[in-house]
Amino acid sequence: MVPHLVPRQLVRLFRWQVACARGASVQPRTWAAACRIPSLLSPWGATGTSHLVCRSSSSTSPCAPEVVLTQERYPVTRLPFSVVSEEDLEAFERIIPGRVVTDPEVLEASNVDWLRTVRGGSKVLLRPRTSQEVAHILRYCHERNLAVNPQGGNTGMVGGSVPVFDEIILSTAQMNQVISFHSVSGTLVCQAGCVLEELSHYVEERGFVMPLDLGAKGSCHIGGNVATNAGGLRFLRYGSLHGTVLGLEVVLADGTILNCLTSLRKDNTGYDLKQLFIGSEGTLGVITAVSIQCPPKPTAVNVAFLGCPGFAEVLQTFSSCRGLLGEILSAYEFMDAECMRLVTHHLCLTSPVQESPFYVLIETSGSRAEHDAEKLSDFLEQVLSSGLVTDGTVATDQMKLKALWALRERISEALSQDGYVYKYDLSLPTERLYDLVPDLRARLGSRAKHVVGYGHLGDGNLHLNVTSEAFSPLLLDALEPYVYEWTARQRGSVSAEHGLGFRKRDVLSYSKPPEALRLMQQLKALLDPQGILNPYKTLPAQA
Amino acid sequence: MVPHLVPRQLVRLFRWQVACARGASVQPRTWAAACRIPSLLSPWGATGTSHLVCRSSSSTSPCAPEVVLTQERYPVTRLPFSVVSEEDLEAFERIIPGRVVTDPEVLEASNVDWLRTVRGGSKVLLRPRTSQEVAHILRYCHERNLAVNPQGGNTGMVGGSVPVFDEIILSTAQMNQVISFHSVSGTLVCQAGCVLEELSHYVEERGFVMPLDLGAKGSCHIGGNVATNAGGLRFLRYGSLHGTVLGLEVVLADGTILNCLTSLRKDNTGYDLKQLFIGSEGTLGVITAVSIQCPPKPTAVNVAFLGCPGFAEVLQTFSSCRGLLGEILSAYEFMDAECMRLVTHHLCLTSPVQESPFYVLIETSGSRAEHDAEKLSDFLEQVLSSGLVTDGTVATDQMKLKALWALRERISEALSQDGYVYKYDLSLPTERLYDLVPDLRARLGSRAKHVVGYGHLGDGNLHLNVTSEAFSPLLLDALEPYVYEWTARQRGSVSAEHGLGFRKRDVLSYSKPPEALRLMQQLKALLDPQGILNPYKTLPAQA
Repeated sequence: MVPHLVPRQLVRLFRWQVACARGASVQPRTWAAACRIPSLLSPWGATGTSHLVCRSSSSTSPCAPEVVLTQERYPVTRLPFSVVSEEDLEAFERIIPGRVVTDPEVLEASNVDWLRTVRGGSKVLLRPRTSQEVAHILRYCHERNLAVNPQGGNTGMVGGSVPVFDEIILSTAQMNQVISFHSVSGTLVCQAGCVLEELSHYVEERGFVMPLDLGAKGSCHIGGNVATNAGGLRFLRYGSLHGTVLGLEVVLADGTILNCLTSLRKDNTGYDLKQLFIGSEGTLGVITAVSIQCPPKPTAVNVAFLGCPGFAEVLQTFSSCRGLLGEILSAYEFMDAECMRLVTHHLCLTSPVQESPFYVLIETSGSRAEHDAEKLSDFLEQVLSSGLVTDGTVATDQMKLKALWALRERISEALSQDGYVYKYDLSLPTERLYDLVPDLRARLGSRAKHVVGYGHLGDGNLHLNVTSEAFSPLLLDALEPYVYEWTARQRGSVSAEHGLGFRKRDVLSYSKPPEALRLMQQLKALLDPQGILNPYKTLPAQA
Repeated sequence: MVPHLVPRQLVRLFRWQVACARGASVQPRTWAAACRIPSLLSPWGATGTSHLVCRSSSSTSPCAPEVVLTQERYPVTRLPFSVVSEEDLEAFERIIPGRVVTDPEVLEASNVDWLRTVRGGSKVLLRPRTSQEVAHILRYCHERNLAVNPQGGNTGMVGGSVPVFDEIILSTAQMNQVISFHSVSGTLVCQAGCVLEELSHYVEERGFVMPLDLGAKGSCHIGGNVATNAGGLRFLRYGSLHGTVLGLEVVLADGTILNCLTSLRKDNTGYDLKQLFIGSEGTLGVITAVSIQCPPKPTAVNVAFLGCPGFAEVLQTFSSCRGLLGEILSAYEFMDAECMRLVTHHLCLTSPVQESPFYVLIETSGSRAEHDAEKLSDFLEQVLSSGLVTDGTVATDQMKLKALWALRERISEALSQDGYVYKYDLSLPTERLYDLVPDLRARLGSRAKHVVGYGHLGDGNLHLNVTSEAFSPLLLDALEPYVYEWTARQRGSVSAEHGLGFRKRDVLSYSKPPEALRLMQQLKALLDPQGILNPYKTLPAQA
């Protein structure tokens, strides 16, 4: 019998480098910190299709270059919606007095996505406070054939949260009230505009956690999270929003309030309508309130950072940890050696373990620290003794946890410093999760500077990134549609967690058959016959 | 510090009565064992609306009285579908040679629901083996305007799985192949007709469990489970099928095969169409294959059976156990003193604890026996020392676990021996879960023999049962619509896990607003414009 080790012993067993703990701390870059969304790392250069970002030297602000209007950059035609008139503005002013925004400077932040890849030309932003106000607005827009762009925290990754032309921006920012919290069941009911981080604090003070957590939590709205079916860091443990959202209130395109805001874990009375709106990106209705199941707050969290000799061992380590960590496993992330080289080179972080072909970050969350430590210790002994893992370190205190997480979370930032980045967010069968990376290295040869793979292995989610010194149309042609076709052959998803929004809507057919697309279009036509809700998003341009 | 106790010590701490372990063993009654669905306890008298069961003395079989035809007992009018002709039978024979059943004796079992409350008059049962065959059949029926009743294991509780008139029965029984199982991720892909228990054995041999478990597991089909959004015993731990089902293959009313059978945990490419079919009871499409996420198999299971002095203490004990048992809590069931009196009186079971106003059954499932025992011990010490619990017993071995579970699971059987049973399956806000029981006792007075409450407290699911010596229309009038209206005032669900099927379709509006009903009807019209799929089910008769 191998003796069980508590974390303190584990720290001695593996090499813990103090330099890493300092070097790996998260330091938001000046641009992001100075401009907007302070809780997010700089998006500059780290875009989903960043070759479309305007990189001209002209700039409208001291901190970032101007983003070209979407309608000028993309082949997209304005649909025959009405144009907002003075009478419309007066009507809105009557519905929500004092909350009709037309100041271009204020509108700028809502017309441009946070990745700065798309830019709309909306002339009006509405800030309702209640579902009734949203209903009144949509009824009016429906009658007037005015297009509407629902907007939460505007933290989306695919250009889904900003207008393409002059759509009215309907912001949930002032719908930010908690409606109820049930201290026995952990059910939270709140308005759609509540910021995720504020909700997290609210429920954590009451002994629960939100079932989702995202890098954008300081800005994103729960309504937007649900509308985009956000994945995030707690997905492996608490699953999809399709399981944790208990009820929704949604305002339909014609202003009908659909009240399915129950707090029941079980309800089999008819079709589960709320599911339609989870992940529909505001194209089928505007989510105005959310009822969500919060799990109890774990009292102990551990993070292990390990080196593996190959991807087969990364997979076997995952199997082993599912067995031995069982119910306390809360994250299983991986990154390849190229990723580590980029974060150590560009961000001056220090690897806490010996150089390895692959690295794995494992997080446990449980209700009893000593039990979790014992499980983790036994797991580590098994994977070390069997050669699945060649080196590793474990952290339990908050600062070291963050430092280890930073090695994984800051890969995107390191990539953006490496040059021009081509980014793909794919779901693939776990056993083939990494195959595309060496395949692309061989295909691209010296045309690419780096081809790297990392992501949420536990969720089958690969972040595939390719860098080059500068944007190259030839390189892009070598990547697309090759990457999408490769993913389609594995029956994978060309958008694992980011959705389709505006920028990815035309790749839907790589992951869904024509019959599914047709049904989606029928659902859109049923729920929004005039197409006024978030037009030009989610579904491909043509039938 | 209170010392930690292992289960053996706990057994000594509490009173474990050997008599109980014997007395509480599950003994299927002769009727059920002799007739059909051997894995299920006898349904006789234990029906959702059992006053509708024919109790005439005439009988078509030696073991059960005949069930009156639904069309004779209920006010329902046949819709203008075509009648199956000889040419139709020949066409089906060409599609599935040798698998077109017209023998009335074989058809009998598929025309009557297992609760023996409804009976259709179908003349033909089809047994396709592939999705292509299902598509071919539906395309033909769609062209010919023939109504179709999809049928899995026929274990539904609300008359949803048998024909009302002469609908063609489309059985999934021969679609029973496992398509794939992924030993790293635990993803199972199989045909819709696989029996749940067989799937459980299959994945358990590979170190996983099915995320759902039901009393009917020996008969029910996974396709039917998904079509009815089955809840069951593992709901508290693994959540809803809306979260655990990864993909579906569905044949639409016109024969279109909708292939959304991916095995991806994350896929945000367009609307999540599979969600539409989960819980739609075969009215929107026929599920032909399922992809489902199986969690790792727990290596340790404990059950505690406790006595509580009041319902407030039942709730506080739940809060306490969520905190102290955390991630290993897998069931929290409760029953009142009347329930215990019924199971001890009618079934000669012995209560393992002192007489109490309420009893709680708590199950833990984890990956490490000694850790789970320690957590459970600490929890029990806390609830005992604080007076939330006044007595209790704990079991870890398989026989005693089953004996304790039997006290809870056999309540329904005891009720059926107590007289005529009026049954309701409600979801309610947890804090009000029991309020309706004393309310009804006061309302009904001596008209009722017993009014009892029990159920899945952890899921907010109350099983409310009223008994009387014989069926009484006056008592029924005192119960309905009172129970439904009371539930509606709490924003509860009048069908927590059983669905609506045929028998409950007219109570939908107690739990869903008119706007939701209208949208459901629109979805039905979109997906099945002729209404051939499982007609007379789920949605109310009139618009």
